[in-house]
Amino acid sequence: MASSELPVIALLTAPEEAPPPGLERLDGRAIINHATSREGLIAAISDADILLVTDFRTRIVAEAWPYAKRLQWVHATSAGVDALLFPELIESPIPVTNARGIFDRAIAETVLGMVLMFAKDFRTTIALQQRHEWRHRETQRIQDKHVLVFGAGSIGRQIARMLTAAGMHVEGIASRERSEDQDFAAIHGPEAFYEQLGQADYVVIAAPLTESTRGLFDVKAFKSMANNAKLINIGRGPIVVTQDLIIALRNGDIAAAALDVFEEEPLPSDHPLWEMSNVFISHHMAGDFIGWRSALIHQFADNFERWQAGSALRNIVDKKRGYVPPEGS
Amino acid sequence: MASSELPVIALLTAPEEAPPPGLERLDGRAIINHATSREGLIAAISDADILLVTDFRTRIVAEAWPYAKRLQWVHATSAGVDALLFPELIESPIPVTNARGIFDRAIAETVLGMVLMFAKDFRTTIALQQRHEWRHRETQRIQDKHVLVFGAGSIGRQIARMLTAAGMHVEGIASRERSEDQDFAAIHGPEAFYEQLGQADYVVIAAPLTESTRGLFDVKAFKSMANNAKLINIGRGPIVVTQDLIIALRNGDIAAAALDVFEEEPLPSDHPLWEMSNVFISHHMAGDFIGWRSALIHQFADNFERWQAGSALRNIVDKKRGYVPPEGS
Repeated sequence: MASSELPVIALLTAPEEAPPPGLERLDGRAIINHATSREGLIAAISDADILLVTDFRTRIVAEAWPYAKRLQWVHATSAGVDALLFPELIESPIPVTNARGIFDRAIAETVLGMVLMFAKDFRTTIALQQRHEWRHRETQRIQDKHVLVFGAGSIGRQIARMLTAAGMHVEGIASRERSEDQDFAAIHGPEAFYEQLGQADYVVIAAPLTESTRGLFDVKAFKSMANNAKLINIGRGPIVVTQDLIIALRNGDIAAAALDVFEEEPLPSDHPLWEMSNVFISHHMAGDFIGWRSALIHQFADNFERWQAGSALRNIVDKKRGYVPPEGS
Repeated sequence: MASSELPVIALLTAPEEAPPPGLERLDGRAIINHATSREGLIAAISDADILLVTDFRTRIVAEAWPYAKRLQWVHATSAGVDALLFPELIESPIPVTNARGIFDRAIAETVLGMVLMFAKDFRTTIALQQRHEWRHRETQRIQDKHVLVFGAGSIGRQIARMLTAAGMHVEGIASRERSEDQDFAAIHGPEAFYEQLGQADYVVIAAPLTESTRGLFDVKAFKSMANNAKLINIGRGPIVVTQDLIIALRNGDIAAAALDVFEEEPLPSDHPLWEMSNVFISHHMAGDFIGWRSALIHQFADNFERWQAGSALRNIVDKKRGYVPPEGS
């Protein structure tokens, strides 16, 4: 890029998605070429300095990749970057940054809401209301209940903080054991996975989709959980083997599940999960608070300013691991 | 009571209600005469030293009262004692104690669950699941949202602590303004009621039913609230003028309500509240956690031991005010 020229940003959104709000902050400071298709991205990426991807499911980037000539940076406005990490990008020196931090608080609130919905049996209460039926019940307290959070990144840590503040006992599973931690009562390594599953009243999946997490919650994992335990997945759908989960729920191996993410999204209308009374189906929206789209763009614009100033980018993904590693690891 | 005799406890429960679990702790230390009707209580109260009432709705005590000859103490296993406080009991020197403290934590958890259910729009999510319909939405964060808790007794304070821990801004209304408080960001007096209602995203009723709270949430109160505000009532039904609430919800004066208590309980099956999509109807169970009945009896038995030892009773209700006053007030 010559110094007199504006940098070019190729913006890839989902089909029929308008450019996200907040991009006007870059008016006069960058040229933005908006693409919504494979062909559009091939045209836009060829002279782009930066690729900005808002569609967390897309695999189009891999197909347009050979046409990139001067790309210096890829930013994803999502926490999970699994769909982006194709081999050529992983091997290239081009940095990938993500939206780490933006969704944490809203996701943690959603998880706490799901925990309380289970404990207070709100779904039965709502079903009774539809029948105009008064029926007093006793419900659970969450105080001192045991939570296992699978994943100790920024989302898992915020979940731990909120659930601890609500009086719960929260331990975590991370890529390695840690002796002391400021957010979790304990952090165990992967070797303690099955044993720790058995200790939890609630198991929360807050991990990225990587080769080590894909399919990890299978029949063996569900058999390791307590019969009265509830699963909450706000991470990525393919971390769970859906068919194994359905069997575990039907067999009573575990008590219930609240799912925000699925192997296939949108969840097909004929999928058996919809009809299961012990499953709560959310729509990949756990972190999408009112204002999230402009918050994501402001985060990108902050990083853009660092990039222009020659400073280090924030939230650089370890492309081999598939997520932004914690500091010092 | 001669020293060689065991004290007699008249136990009044709802009809067909078994004696609560935990009373075996008093085996050999008291005679318990169980009544479930007006006639039964008249027989039981005549030689009772203590009256133990587990039915928080009953007005039978007033009718049996003239038959009490040597009663020294009345204990109610409920937080609210409104139904018990008839004029003859108020004027008598006999102390009334209540179940202050037992329900606090479970009620606060329920209130937090209701707040999160509203903020995360779980009811729409559940309705969509019934239709197998995937629909991504943006939802609210509760962080920094403004809560007004009406009532700063032990339940209101626990609500304030939990909601504050979850990141909300919580102020209270009490019988008088307090300049600094350990649980609330601010406590206002009754004179600030209408003004403070207008500041809140969530208004939580956690007050006892007294002559000053009866009917206080009427058309004027609802007009004072913000159009997007939600009302949560876990106090007592008659604090709200139900007909005014229905009109306010229909007119959009307020956005929604979660109600655990009603002017008439059980809520009649033809009551219009059941059909309102912006109303969540719970069944006077917000504080009734698994184990609550034996927790209530253990609390009574602790007080019984103090009574036998001649120590001061705990949780003595100010019968004129209608609740256990905070220390030093």
